[in-house]
Amino acid sequence: MKAILRQNVLSANQKKADELRKKFREKQVKAVNIIGSPGCGKTSILEQVIPRLAGVRTAVIEGDIATTRDAARIAALGVPAVQITTHGACHLDAILVAQSTAQINLAETDLLFIENIGNLVCPATFDLGESLRILVLSTTEGSDKPAKYPMAFRTSQVVIINKIDLIPYTDFKLEEVIEEIQGINPGALVFQASCRTQEGMVELASWLTRLSAGDGFHRRQEG
Amino acid sequence: MKAILRQNVLSANQKKADELRKKFREKQVKAVNIIGSPGCGKTSILEQVIPRLAGVRTAVIEGDIATTRDAARIAALGVPAVQITTHGACHLDAILVAQSTAQINLAETDLLFIENIGNLVCPATFDLGESLRILVLSTTEGSDKPAKYPMAFRTSQVVIINKIDLIPYTDFKLEEVIEEIQGINPGALVFQASCRTQEGMVELASWLTRLSAGDGFHRRQEG
Repeated sequence: MKAILRQNVLSANQKKADELRKKFREKQVKAVNIIGSPGCGKTSILEQVIPRLAGVRTAVIEGDIATTRDAARIAALGVPAVQITTHGACHLDAILVAQSTAQINLAETDLLFIENIGNLVCPATFDLGESLRILVLSTTEGSDKPAKYPMAFRTSQVVIINKIDLIPYTDFKLEEVIEEIQGINPGALVFQASCRTQEGMVELASWLTRLSAGDGFHRRQEG
Repeated sequence: MKAILRQNVLSANQKKADELRKKFREKQVKAVNIIGSPGCGKTSILEQVIPRLAGVRTAVIEGDIATTRDAARIAALGVPAVQITTHGACHLDAILVAQSTAQINLAETDLLFIENIGNLVCPATFDLGESLRILVLSTTEGSDKPAKYPMAFRTSQVVIINKIDLIPYTDFKLEEVIEEIQGINPGALVFQASCRTQEGMVELASWLTRLSAGDGFHRRQEG
């Protein structure tokens, strides 16, 4: 029964996600679903990247279990930010995202970032209608994370390895991790970044700018 | 419907957890449920602490979504280790733990560590029949985690702030975080630790040794 209901929840989510994807496409919005562990640096990356997106109209949906701190951090950048507070739920779903988009002027948005709940497990199975999924992995989480959370890595087209400035103080093995990611998801594009030193931020912003201009890939072909 | 089913799942879990707690009590086993984000250092702490538990008979249940790496790390210490691989599920539940205890000689176990899935959300709502819940928070996750994941902090009697050796390289605010934890959970006992420098490990091991000898608190009063 648990399995059947889970299937129903996932089917309902998929239907709504497909509708959302169609809507984003019609409005020429690229939606980017950002997932990763608590504290891996999802919001910090947005704080670094958004001001570098020249000529790109950006909006952000911030998912959190409690507090509106992240939306406040994003709003401080002067871009529209909508907070979803899930009150305990461990992932965003397409229904919540669809509700939030009512508060965003999609006709004036090129790039819509959706920052998911800090969780390397549950968000991986919920399509939000995004064009692209980015996984943020911080070096302090250790080298074994791709093997231990394969679904998250398999369903993300982009992996940002964040906090590379901390590598000297950890036993993180950068090359091995990149190899492991590419073993799980051979097509994944891997960025190296640090919000403290700003390393990698120009490259990431430049890639996202090209994506927003249509020079990127869609998560899947729509009918 | 989703809410009703969730309630049924939680009730079934609670029933099994209460049975398990009774069993642990009869066998004089202290069960410790360890939760925390991916890569916060749960397994590393066990690797440091277990060899320091003089005269305490220890066993470990290792929960992971994929791989048996952590159980192999624990088995290398020469203590019984049972791996639960959840194949995608985002938390352990009492039913899985009850099955695993069949592989452990409880009559010869004083302290049973149950390392949960790396996740700061879902494990917080699933009682595993434990005597005690320990939350591991690493400094690299940032200072805002207690406010953002309150349920996990509220239901844990002990919080280990790990990777304190990395504080100089982050903007983690130790005192503020401890204050915030105590605001959410005034009775919480907070340890500071580093697996790299071994700071705090003697204190933690000594506290756990006293716990295993009965000089600790139960998570709740059993009927």
